[in-house]
Amino acid sequence: METYTGIPEELKHSVLEKIKPTETEKKKLLEIQEELASEVKTAADKLGVSAVLVKMVGSAARGTWLSGTHDIDVFISFPEETPRKELETLGMAIAREVAKLAEHAEDRHAEHPYLNIVFKGFDVDLVPCFRVASASHIKSAVDRTPFHNDFVKARINGCEDEVLLLKQFMRGCGVYGSELRTQGFSGYLTELLIIHYGSFENTVRAASSWKPGEKIDIMQHSEIEHREPLVIVDPTDPKRNVAAALSLDNFCMFIDCCREFLKSPELKFFFPAPFLPLEDREIIERLESRKSTQLAVLFKTPDVVEDVLYPQLYKMEQAVAAFLKEYEFSVIKTGVWSGKNETVIMLELISGALPNVKKHIGPPVWVKEHAEKFKEKYEGAEDVFGGYIENGKYVFEIRRKYPIAKGLLENQLINCSLGKHIHQSVNEGFEIIENAEICSLKDLDFRIFLRKWL
Amino acid sequence: METYTGIPEELKHSVLEKIKPTETEKKKLLEIQEELASEVKTAADKLGVSAVLVKMVGSAARGTWLSGTHDIDVFISFPEETPRKELETLGMAIAREVAKLAEHAEDRHAEHPYLNIVFKGFDVDLVPCFRVASASHIKSAVDRTPFHNDFVKARINGCEDEVLLLKQFMRGCGVYGSELRTQGFSGYLTELLIIHYGSFENTVRAASSWKPGEKIDIMQHSEIEHREPLVIVDPTDPKRNVAAALSLDNFCMFIDCCREFLKSPELKFFFPAPFLPLEDREIIERLESRKSTQLAVLFKTPDVVEDVLYPQLYKMEQAVAAFLKEYEFSVIKTGVWSGKNETVIMLELISGALPNVKKHIGPPVWVKEHAEKFKEKYEGAEDVFGGYIENGKYVFEIRRKYPIAKGLLENQLINCSLGKHIHQSVNEGFEIIENAEICSLKDLDFRIFLRKWL
Repeated sequence: METYTGIPEELKHSVLEKIKPTETEKKKLLEIQEELASEVKTAADKLGVSAVLVKMVGSAARGTWLSGTHDIDVFISFPEETPRKELETLGMAIAREVAKLAEHAEDRHAEHPYLNIVFKGFDVDLVPCFRVASASHIKSAVDRTPFHNDFVKARINGCEDEVLLLKQFMRGCGVYGSELRTQGFSGYLTELLIIHYGSFENTVRAASSWKPGEKIDIMQHSEIEHREPLVIVDPTDPKRNVAAALSLDNFCMFIDCCREFLKSPELKFFFPAPFLPLEDREIIERLESRKSTQLAVLFKTPDVVEDVLYPQLYKMEQAVAAFLKEYEFSVIKTGVWSGKNETVIMLELISGALPNVKKHIGPPVWVKEHAEKFKEKYEGAEDVFGGYIENGKYVFEIRRKYPIAKGLLENQLINCSLGKHIHQSVNEGFEIIENAEICSLKDLDFRIFLRKWL
Repeated sequence: METYTGIPEELKHSVLEKIKPTETEKKKLLEIQEELASEVKTAADKLGVSAVLVKMVGSAARGTWLSGTHDIDVFISFPEETPRKELETLGMAIAREVAKLAEHAEDRHAEHPYLNIVFKGFDVDLVPCFRVASASHIKSAVDRTPFHNDFVKARINGCEDEVLLLKQFMRGCGVYGSELRTQGFSGYLTELLIIHYGSFENTVRAASSWKPGEKIDIMQHSEIEHREPLVIVDPTDPKRNVAAALSLDNFCMFIDCCREFLKSPELKFFFPAPFLPLEDREIIERLESRKSTQLAVLFKTPDVVEDVLYPQLYKMEQAVAAFLKEYEFSVIKTGVWSGKNETVIMLELISGALPNVKKHIGPPVWVKEHAEKFKEKYEGAEDVFGGYIENGKYVFEIRRKYPIAKGLLENQLINCSLGKHIHQSVNEGFEIIENAEICSLKDLDFRIFLRKWL
């Protein structure tokens, strides 16, 4: 029988002290929200758009935001029957009008265009959306958000602190955030977990025994099967899995952290010590100790948003590893780091060099036609060391075309299956550096990445 | 449509000229056989054993022996009801009496004891056997031979040359001989092939399209299923596969040689140029060119007959390769050479060195009990580089115990699954030599082996 220590109240207090917005912060946020709502209204009036409503959504609107974050989501909601084009034009026109008062403004694009502004120090998204009848009838992904907002606001009352604890705990585990870079838990997802399990502690206890296929369906209205490791049916849309973005490894990482935390509930889970950049001397020492081969594929970071970049990077990581395996190199692990200017795909190999001789196994001797063709091709050919029969099959010892992994990538990287933007960047130039040569990469964030890598 | 050239008559003549016993040879053999038969009779009379019969068997008796070979098989046949002990005692007594006239005599042992003598330059086996009613009722394996003799003698008449051609062709291919070292075709098997197919050329044509499962049942009396690649049901015993000793690779090698021979029927298939011993300089060159790692396991050749030694060597070859693979070394190929004094197991590896770091994959995180035990064992332990979660499983990077293949074998060879006699020899001492160190092995026969190996 396992006995977990309970989570001490003092610990929760200590955490909340650091992450819970103060009354001053809350008041400030409320003021800004009201100001923004009024500015949107004013702008709409000025532009003669009458049917719009302003809706504050997101964690700021639900009282579940972490102190220090300054994100506000303002939804500018149009009647459902508004033509898409009109929604975009008028919505953005209103947003731009508001942006006149902002320190900074930037056009962004999800399914629709929206405007991101910095307004009195707050990071504000001004998002045009449709006012649809229910979340299952949305016309655009953002239309769902107001329904989430309503669902959570109606149920979270009094549990806001629990949400904050869970969010900060997930941050500490490195699994908070549903963007494609992180593939972790979204804010809405943490809120649903607290609504379902009732508290941070209950969530952590339950999660420590999760298995892939874990399903939570608060409204008992699930309509389809999902294949993701965690399925949290959206209470506002029976077809949607709120945890669809969560990767298997982050699902497992969270389970692992919950177990460890319950064994010894300490502050460090919420606020882990930062990793320090690895120094040259440490890099050399660790390379010497591991005696594997490190390859770094280096290229200019494509100028696209992270949600576009990271899926391509993860795909590249897999593609390059598969490519090396095809050429018989044994890949121990792969990693991705991307900075403002440079991006690095790291590959650790059993060895960066293979012998010249390569065993090439052909068809069984008795599959006459194939076997004869195979033999004809290789027997006595240039760069063939020899041939024999093994387990009934022709085997030729041929000269390996690429005995050096670095050379293989230098020659063939461009032929790997690469995403559009990475292909472009790699096509403009890339570099393969090996082992101690990675000391030439001085970016501190890369060096922090290296501390976990080596 | 394939068109094979026929086999030129001149070619067959040229071959037969070299391998067909001359009239003088035949006369000489007949004389010796008669002399031996008469000596056995005399000895039996002298010892007061009346019921024995003398039977000349083997290729010498069937006119299918190759010129230059001087083997005679003399079977001393006792009535079926003779007690086993008595057969052995009296049979060997008679043989020893005959051996008094021989240049050399040596006790040997198959299922029964028998005597091998050198008599007037001929290598003669004097074999006591039972005179049973049919080959399916034999009391000892040798009792079968006289039935084979009768079957072949009654059918081979006029086809002796064809048998000779097939035997010599198989010799050239390296697949002639059914002893456990060679695992090829026996003399009796070649005779049955000629009886079945009618000629050397027909046999070669048929064999070039053989597939595993090929079955020839001359008497149409097969009683059981066999799983060997080639099944030639013994005409004198419906349960026995005459080709049981033939390995898959020799089966394939023969198919391959038949195809090549039919494409260009030349003398070299019967009399291939001998391999020359590989010189030091050539060894170094070839090692340089291949850039793989060569390991040689060297030990004293156990003092046992080849039929005992070779199965143990082949088993060892497999066992050592499997052992190396278990420790993550990639074995390209394995080979065996055994001389009078020394025996060598050759192993070619992708690399003889692996990095210190070894990826140790544990259970999925959600298999709670196992996963927790695994993590506890490795986390923070000595000689652990780090840990992470990959594809839902805990992974720890641990220090490899044996990063060097040579060191692994030096330490652990004795724990591989080795046959009795090899275990004994290895236990008394062995050496692992690497790459150019094999130049220290000067045995010419080993150097011939190396020419095929490297």
